[in-house]
Amino acid sequence: MKKVAIIMGSDSDLPVAEKAAAKLAEFAVPFEVHIFSAHRTPDEARQFARCARERDFGVIIAAAGMAAHLAGAIAANTTLPVVGIPLKSKSLDGVDALLSTVQMPSGIPVATVAIDGAVNAALLSVEILALSDETLARKLDDYRAAETEKVLAKNAAAEARFNNI
Amino acid sequence: MKKVAIIMGSDSDLPVAEKAAAKLAEFAVPFEVHIFSAHRTPDEARQFARCARERDFGVIIAAAGMAAHLAGAIAANTTLPVVGIPLKSKSLDGVDALLSTVQMPSGIPVATVAIDGAVNAALLSVEILALSDETLARKLDDYRAAETEKVLAKNAAAEARFNNI
Amino acid sequence: MKKVAIIMGSDSDLPVAEKAAAKLAEFAVPFEVHIFSAHRTPDEARQFARCARERDFGVIIAAAGMAAHLAGAIAANTTLPVVGIPLKSKSLDGVDALLSTVQMPSGIPVATVAIDGAVNAALLSVEILALSDETLARKLDDYRAAETEKVLAKNAAAEARFNNI
Amino acid sequence: MKKVAIIMGSDSDLPVAEKAAAKLAEFAVPFEVHIFSAHRTPDEARQFARCARERDFGVIIAAAGMAAHLAGAIAANTTLPVVGIPLKSKSLDGVDALLSTVQMPSGIPVATVAIDGAVNAALLSVEILALSDETLARKLDDYRAAETEKVLAKNAAAEARFNNI
Amino acid sequence: MKKVAIIMGSDSDLPVAEKAAAKLAEFAVPFEVHIFSAHRTPDEARQFARCARERDFGVIIAAAGMAAHLAGAIAANTTLPVVGIPLKSKSLDGVDALLSTVQMPSGIPVATVAIDGAVNAALLSVEILALSDETLARKLDDYRAAETEKVLAKNAAAEARFNNI
Amino acid sequence: MKKVAIIMGSDSDLPVAEKAAAKLAEFAVPFEVHIFSAHRTPDEARQFARCARERDFGVIIAAAGMAAHLAGAIAANTTLPVVGIPLKSKSLDGVDALLSTVQMPSGIPVATVAIDGAVNAALLSVEILALSDETLARKLDDYRAAETEKVLAKNAAAEARFNNI
Amino acid sequence: MKKVAIIMGSDSDLPVAEKAAAKLAEFAVPFEVHIFSAHRTPDEARQFARCARERDFGVIIAAAGMAAHLAGAIAANTTLPVVGIPLKSKSLDGVDALLSTVQMPSGIPVATVAIDGAVNAALLSVEILALSDETLARKLDDYRAAETEKVLAKNAAAEARFNNI
Amino acid sequence: MKKVAIIMGSDSDLPVAEKAAAKLAEFAVPFEVHIFSAHRTPDEARQFARCARERDFGVIIAAAGMAAHLAGAIAANTTLPVVGIPLKSKSLDGVDALLSTVQMPSGIPVATVAIDGAVNAALLSVEILALSDETLARKLDDYRAAETEKVLAKNAAAEARFNNI
Repeated sequence: MKKVAIIMGSDSDLPVAEKAAAKLAEFAVPFEVHIFSAHRTPDEARQFARCARERDFGVIIAAAGMAAHLAGAIAANTTLPVVGIPLKSKSLDGVDALLSTVQMPSGIPVATVAIDGAVNAALLSVEILALSDETLARKLDDYRAAETEKVLAKNAAAEARFNNI
Repeated sequence: MKKVAIIMGSDSDLPVAEKAAAKLAEFAVPFEVHIFSAHRTPDEARQFARCARERDFGVIIAAAGMAAHLAGAIAANTTLPVVGIPLKSKSLDGVDALLSTVQMPSGIPVATVAIDGAVNAALLSVEILALSDETLARKLDDYRAAETEKVLAKNAAAEARFNNI
Repeated sequence: MKKVAIIMGSDSDLPVAEKAAAKLAEFAVPFEVHIFSAHRTPDEARQFARCARERDFGVIIAAAGMAAHLAGAIAANTTLPVVGIPLKSKSLDGVDALLSTVQMPSGIPVATVAIDGAVNAALLSVEILALSDETLARKLDDYRAAETEKVLAKNAAAEARFNNI
Repeated sequence: MKKVAIIMGSDSDLPVAEKAAAKLAEFAVPFEVHIFSAHRTPDEARQFARCARERDFGVIIAAAGMAAHLAGAIAANTTLPVVGIPLKSKSLDGVDALLSTVQMPSGIPVATVAIDGAVNAALLSVEILALSDETLARKLDDYRAAETEKVLAKNAAAEARFNNI
Repeated sequence: MKKVAIIMGSDSDLPVAEKAAAKLAEFAVPFEVHIFSAHRTPDEARQFARCARERDFGVIIAAAGMAAHLAGAIAANTTLPVVGIPLKSKSLDGVDALLSTVQMPSGIPVATVAIDGAVNAALLSVEILALSDETLARKLDDYRAAETEKVLAKNAAAEARFNNI
Repeated sequence: MKKVAIIMGSDSDLPVAEKAAAKLAEFAVPFEVHIFSAHRTPDEARQFARCARERDFGVIIAAAGMAAHLAGAIAANTTLPVVGIPLKSKSLDGVDALLSTVQMPSGIPVATVAIDGAVNAALLSVEILALSDETLARKLDDYRAAETEKVLAKNAAAEARFNNI
Repeated sequence: MKKVAIIMGSDSDLPVAEKAAAKLAEFAVPFEVHIFSAHRTPDEARQFARCARERDFGVIIAAAGMAAHLAGAIAANTTLPVVGIPLKSKSLDGVDALLSTVQMPSGIPVATVAIDGAVNAALLSVEILALSDETLARKLDDYRAAETEKVLAKNAAAEARFNNI
Repeated sequence: MKKVAIIMGSDSDLPVAEKAAAKLAEFAVPFEVHIFSAHRTPDEARQFARCARERDFGVIIAAAGMAAHLAGAIAANTTLPVVGIPLKSKSLDGVDALLSTVQMPSGIPVATVAIDGAVNAALLSVEILALSDETLARKLDDYRAAETEKVLAKNAAAEARFNNI
């Protein structure tokens, strides 16, 4: 199976990135974690992106805050699917990172998820890899079913609590 | 090769959707175009999403404006990768569609591209399909190279015009 | 009397939803509470909406955060009045939920109240039901009069404190 | 059948208000149109709201732009359901009117629809009146079915055009 | 000397309103404090505004949050200068109150100050009253001079701390 | 009677400033028009502000766009009431000018009106001057009454057109 | 004298970039114009930035729209001062470009000017170069004086037109 | 070497300003710290700006919050490069300060950095001074290299922790 790379711009982003890692591990999808900054280690970021396909990566998740260029910088150097996670920082509530990640110019797509949306970044990566892996596709269906069950259980609890008879 | 579905919520969205279609055609990626509204034909949207994997779709592109629920409604009914295009409408400059598309809750990812970003939605779909199709991957590299050449040619023209000697 | 349904997308939304429930109870309006997710239990949400009229509901209140599709998804499956409560989440201060709830396309209305506006969602539901229930209409008048009295009492206290003689 | 009032703050708002009127006429719901300004004719607005229930109105639609106080000013003087239409003006793209209409404090609800959302304001009013009028409820179902048919027809046209065989 | 009225929509707004009161007291400007809600006690608010000039008020300060209609509702019922203080609430950081207060339609001005800007509301009121009161005008000059002195003293402290020699 | 100064930062702002001038003329309030830029002619702006009170001005209206410092720069150099008109420019729809004008720090108030709100800036100035001028106060009442009449006439026209009988 | 580089991401940005070029020419500051895309020709952008100091550039102006990474990508590869011009695109009024340009993380500064602020980008570059070039510093003073004169002339015209005697 | 001035509008801004001071000290760049308010000590601010070049300053950093006029007021009185730091205040998350600082009209540039971006303001100042100081330029390169090393070390730690084998 192809691997997923989780790249973040700073080790302060680890708490969000770890959620993506944990979700990938839950699906037994192989992954690597790297800290590459679009601005402070641009060469490493570029080098990683350029070799990612031949190093057998299938998806690259890039998480960054503020003027979040990381996902775009990675996407500029690979034609692998790049998933961008805009991170909330000290000001602006993540709007800067969201717009810096999603408003990519024509030609270089970044698949953007919600602000701090690490779990969905991982799930999207799994969905992509599952296109050529039926076992993974079934795991996704099972995951959805389990999520549905959780909501149903919570609903049952709420109904029992609020709706007499 | 798996197909791409381009779904939009209204035929007024066709001008944007056609750009995605044209780009897919350029890559010889098979695709279908459908008009399903998350609100006016929710059953058809849901039915399409539920059967998309077995009907051999690999990616679903969903384009919608305002409170753009279409991509999320599709994603709720399939574990295929769903690419969301937020569309600019008469007011709010597309911010409503962007937030309604990208801010998906944990569990149901939507790969969001820029407002009116149809070309990137198509390219992202091609990137996803190219993971298991080396010919397509090479086409993407060729496309990037051609895009690069275009910028270089424009740069040469600008340099010739502005930078004497 | 017709019932009001209070639906929320997650049990983390209960603190807001309970305020609506408490206000309905104060008016002795019968209600049910349910947890249906537009994305994780779309079938249950849809099924509930489809049968709501014949199950004698008069209004459906739907509370959700982020890309808040719940109210719209309910409204797409019923012609009962649907009241949407946009919920504030971890980022964006509820703007995402507000726009996702209120910017509904033509044809499928959602009666949107303020961010986290559970009390007003309940009062709006009571106002709707009171159209065919004079007792309820009088209760609303009494409630308004009592609210007015509270403000007048606070005003009297402030005047006594600040305005000597 | 109870009547619907369509109130707007200025005759420059008539183009939007007429869309609500036309939709009500389509459902054969009786309505009145009035121009009352929350700021320039506050007494008339207040007087109208105070007598609306006894004058047999069931819903009041209020459309206003900028610091749109009209819906709130009406709602402060009646316990009938008030539907607010925020109008787009020369600047700020309607955001000012949206927030001024929807962010009502606890106690005085306004059922807010999308910016310039006159059709949905009318449909919401019909939905409210239909709670005690089965003929109207059936008309709503027919309207929805017709809307669905329109989307299906457009989808068929799009499918015929784009999806060969 | 004419009086200033400080009106707020709720007693939860007292902490901000008191800052205005304290500043007026500092200038020995007579004032009254009232709690009138544009929505819950609209008659009292209106009545107050209508009689304010003959009751010898010169300026009315109105502080409110969310869809802050109070200043506009007061201004609609008097031609005295009305100063609006938009208050920050639980969501949206005061943007809703700011736009609801400042974006008044042509004909009914509200002199808006910064979000939670109670001190400036008081100072603006003093400036207005000082137009026909030279003692007050001199006090304003003294106040400015004292404020300047404070900044100069802080500057001197900072210079002493940071700038060697 | 004291005079009103209308200051703008650039002659491109004249179309808005003229509306303020016309409204002042309508009330027979003496006024002067000046073009002083906070950034390009800061000395003239400052000098004007410093001498405004002794030159018998009562109110200074300052209109500027973008990072609109003009009103604040004037206010920093006088204790006369300063009315700020934020102007809409080529981008950002006037939000930059609004925040730059209204968010003044404690100590230096600017009475801010709506974006491009020249008429209200003039009316606010008239209201301020009318505090010590009963004739002007009566004119304001007459103006309000006339405005009310206009709305009533428009209402009558709308009622005649839409409300049969 | 050191040169200024004007870099833009696309030839559609030329109309803005040319304004910077014209202003530099007015000051007889040598400059070059290049089209380098952060995403489509990242190597050329990087290569240019890396060699800019030894090629005798003193300032690099980078203009880009949408998720405007260009200025940041240049700044990541040089320690020359980089001036960023955020460009307005088809949606969001330039807010995306502004935040993507200005919200740079600690360590890699970009000197950001206003949206579409090409003239100021040029002037800022001249100011920087003038630190070690007294002739240029005098030209800047002359330019300011001339700008001041223009405003004074416009003021004189306005005063003549509006202020009788 | 020319000096850098760090000016702030209030001593409450010292925590941010000190970060700029510390970074300048790290580069052994001489600097002064001053508290000048654009509104409360406009004369001192203006006087300082007017004499800054002859007092051998090379760059002026100006930090302010809310309607942050300080950087613009300084820039209006000097042709030295002015670096603006928008500061986050109690409301609006720094958006007001950002727009008030960056959206300067044509003719008077302010080099704006991120909200609370004191370190980058210092680094930008160093970059500007380094244009005529090769030792400083080398220090900048060393600083960048050290920053890169830090990221590489963090990356190595993350890789060791997450990527087994």
